[in-house]
Amino acid sequence: MAHHPHAFLPGASKRLEALSDGVFAIACTLLVLEIKIPHFSQGLTMAQQWEIIKEAETLPSIVAFIFSFLNILIFWTNHDAINKVLVRFDTKTTYLNIVFLLFISLIPFTTAFLRENLSSFIANASYGLVLMLASVAAVMMYHHLAFRAKLFLPEVTMTSRKRVYIQVLSGPILFMIAIAAGVISTYISIAIYAITPISFMFLPQLDFDTKEEEKIKEQHQ
Amino acid sequence: MAHHPHAFLPGASKRLEALSDGVFAIACTLLVLEIKIPHFSQGLTMAQQWEIIKEAETLPSIVAFIFSFLNILIFWTNHDAINKVLVRFDTKTTYLNIVFLLFISLIPFTTAFLRENLSSFIANASYGLVLMLASVAAVMMYHHLAFRAKLFLPEVTMTSRKRVYIQVLSGPILFMIAIAAGVISTYISIAIYAITPISFMFLPQLDFDTKEEEKIKEQHQ
Amino acid sequence: MAHHPHAFLPGASKRLEALSDGVFAIACTLLVLEIKIPHFSQGLTMAQQWEIIKEAETLPSIVAFIFSFLNILIFWTNHDAINKVLVRFDTKTTYLNIVFLLFISLIPFTTAFLRENLSSFIANASYGLVLMLASVAAVMMYHHLAFRAKLFLPEVTMTSRKRVYIQVLSGPILFMIAIAAGVISTYISIAIYAITPISFMFLPQLDFDTKEEEKIKEQHQ
Amino acid sequence: MAHHPHAFLPGASKRLEALSDGVFAIACTLLVLEIKIPHFSQGLTMAQQWEIIKEAETLPSIVAFIFSFLNILIFWTNHDAINKVLVRFDTKTTYLNIVFLLFISLIPFTTAFLRENLSSFIANASYGLVLMLASVAAVMMYHHLAFRAKLFLPEVTMTSRKRVYIQVLSGPILFMIAIAAGVISTYISIAIYAITPISFMFLPQLDFDTKEEEKIKEQHQ
Repeated sequence: MAHHPHAFLPGASKRLEALSDGVFAIACTLLVLEIKIPHFSQGLTMAQQWEIIKEAETLPSIVAFIFSFLNILIFWTNHDAINKVLVRFDTKTTYLNIVFLLFISLIPFTTAFLRENLSSFIANASYGLVLMLASVAAVMMYHHLAFRAKLFLPEVTMTSRKRVYIQVLSGPILFMIAIAAGVISTYISIAIYAITPISFMFLPQLDFDTKEEEKIKEQHQ
Repeated sequence: MAHHPHAFLPGASKRLEALSDGVFAIACTLLVLEIKIPHFSQGLTMAQQWEIIKEAETLPSIVAFIFSFLNILIFWTNHDAINKVLVRFDTKTTYLNIVFLLFISLIPFTTAFLRENLSSFIANASYGLVLMLASVAAVMMYHHLAFRAKLFLPEVTMTSRKRVYIQVLSGPILFMIAIAAGVISTYISIAIYAITPISFMFLPQLDFDTKEEEKIKEQHQ
Repeated sequence: MAHHPHAFLPGASKRLEALSDGVFAIACTLLVLEIKIPHFSQGLTMAQQWEIIKEAETLPSIVAFIFSFLNILIFWTNHDAINKVLVRFDTKTTYLNIVFLLFISLIPFTTAFLRENLSSFIANASYGLVLMLASVAAVMMYHHLAFRAKLFLPEVTMTSRKRVYIQVLSGPILFMIAIAAGVISTYISIAIYAITPISFMFLPQLDFDTKEEEKIKEQHQ
Repeated sequence: MAHHPHAFLPGASKRLEALSDGVFAIACTLLVLEIKIPHFSQGLTMAQQWEIIKEAETLPSIVAFIFSFLNILIFWTNHDAINKVLVRFDTKTTYLNIVFLLFISLIPFTTAFLRENLSSFIANASYGLVLMLASVAAVMMYHHLAFRAKLFLPEVTMTSRKRVYIQVLSGPILFMIAIAAGVISTYISIAIYAITPISFMFLPQLDFDTKEEEKIKEQHQ
């Protein structure tokens, strides 16, 4: 019955969305458990307290929390943007989405691993690898939905599907560069991991055109 | 296509709501992991058991749990009240909301940090700072939604938008006062953090008027 | 505007439901983190492994997991049953619901506390107290919704509202008895905490009648 | 009132779905907390770092994370597939679903237990037992919904209900075999636990036919 996997209920992607939102929310909130809590004994001066905070590496763990939190939610933003133009998920996308969520769930681990070992190439490459694999799963999902299974709303133009595909493809490439840059210096990788989600917020979001909008655009050119 | 970022699906804010509800629910429930569990050896009298509970600082950690839980869910209440009059989220609000959630997610950390170091100005100021930053993000979101992007339901009057804006603005100011009060005594700050959510429950909620309701009000004055 | 707190959107309780479901799901799933994981060194016989499991108190912690899990989800079942006949939540119920969730969130702590100190009256009473306070919050919510604020669907008969009220009231009374029984033996309390949710599954659920159903019932008597 | 337990709201299963999705999402994401984070001291070579990763058993704990994550979400996939053809849940299915979720919630514990003791029969059997019990609860739910309570959409044919029943029944049988295989070698059990969810992704999903679809099928034979 491959031609109508979810024939019974049209709103079939609602629960996959709910599951995904749950995993995104938990993965980004669990990160807080990795922040190290400094303990001051009684009667310390404020300078001594800062010294303890420094030794406990609380600040780097907060910074790691922030950029992992943002990386996870940028993935969420894209997941959401693509879902908006979907008719439904099919079985293949369901499984690709599960694999995608698997990598999202691993981010709290790679964050803790990186924060513990900022100058280790292995820790840096692990962090980048998980982000890269999540991006690859996202690319595969997008490709299947937009070009193979024709599960996008039919009014979404092919031009805008292709334009967004290039944006989506930039993810794995960027993280591959970040991993490679770690050979030179792990601090370049870390900078890429930290700057990516913030810069993303100032770039145009994934955005699709309907056929009518495309016509208007063409007339204005 | 800046003028219609989510043109395809009108109920576009449903998933941002779901993500936000998830983060709120997890942040407030994770707090329980920070409560210290006392262990009694066999054959202790009840008085000795209370002594162990006191040494383990279980009661302060329960109190910290309670007021952080309530602080988080008061934020949720306001988030919900504003959402009720929204047509949809735009890209800018999505990102502001992500930043807002980032600060909400940090509350389990600042709670543990404060509880470990009740008399430390740094721990107290951290706790207040995160609440203040969450409030600032909320103010920015509100301002954008109500006055800039015109994303509120059109029937919500400008008078009630402005009245609620003043209520929303009181958040960051209150937490700034709490931080400053910590210079005199950290116990004043703690009192503010603890009393705020409880007193909020007895204050009028964020509430908007439709144009018709406003007319009726004016006639009654 | 006290008479129409959520005038703008009729489906106003959807997000409170989502938040509550989140807290219920997290509270019951977090319990698993409290189960003690035994570690066997290489080359132990199966009998020696069972010895380690016994010493690690893995089995009692699994039993504690199971009955706390069920207690939490029985609360959820009742929460759900009452929600089904609601028109909407008002501000007062929102806050009562938040306080109710606060006690639900505390259950993972009291579970760990009880399991660590099975024979301690304090630990047993804490466990019962949190369940009792959650029940009291539920009773207050129910009373407000069904009799004061008239937020139930109008077709729900007064007779069935009162019948369910007595069922709801049995919660705090039961947990009060469990706490008191701990004075005689903590194992009686534990037995009540463990048997309650299981026996509940075989009792009739909270159930409301419409006026028409009531008429049919009366004719059959 | 046994004949109409949820008479008031037809969409009565929405919240049970939400609760289930929450438990699934949390159970699979919590698994990440069990992965062991290696810490490298300054100045180690990459070979020495790999040595520490090996000693910390990080890789086996990642593998355990992956197959438990997939096992949980394969259960989710089936839960979702069956829900799609449901009219609603009744009281009995609600309780069976709660018991089912209880076993799903235990998977993070059995995963940690197994990973700590790869060669222990007890640890392996525990892992399989929890999966088996979850499958048994699923079988009982399916049997009740499809054959007893007639809660499936009436257009779902009896032939396809029976075909899916056999698929659902294969779960407990498979996990029973995995437990038994542990007597010969625990590595056979582990292989079954790891291969099952992956192979499942390449098998046909649970799928139901409407009466019309069945007619078309018959004509083509």
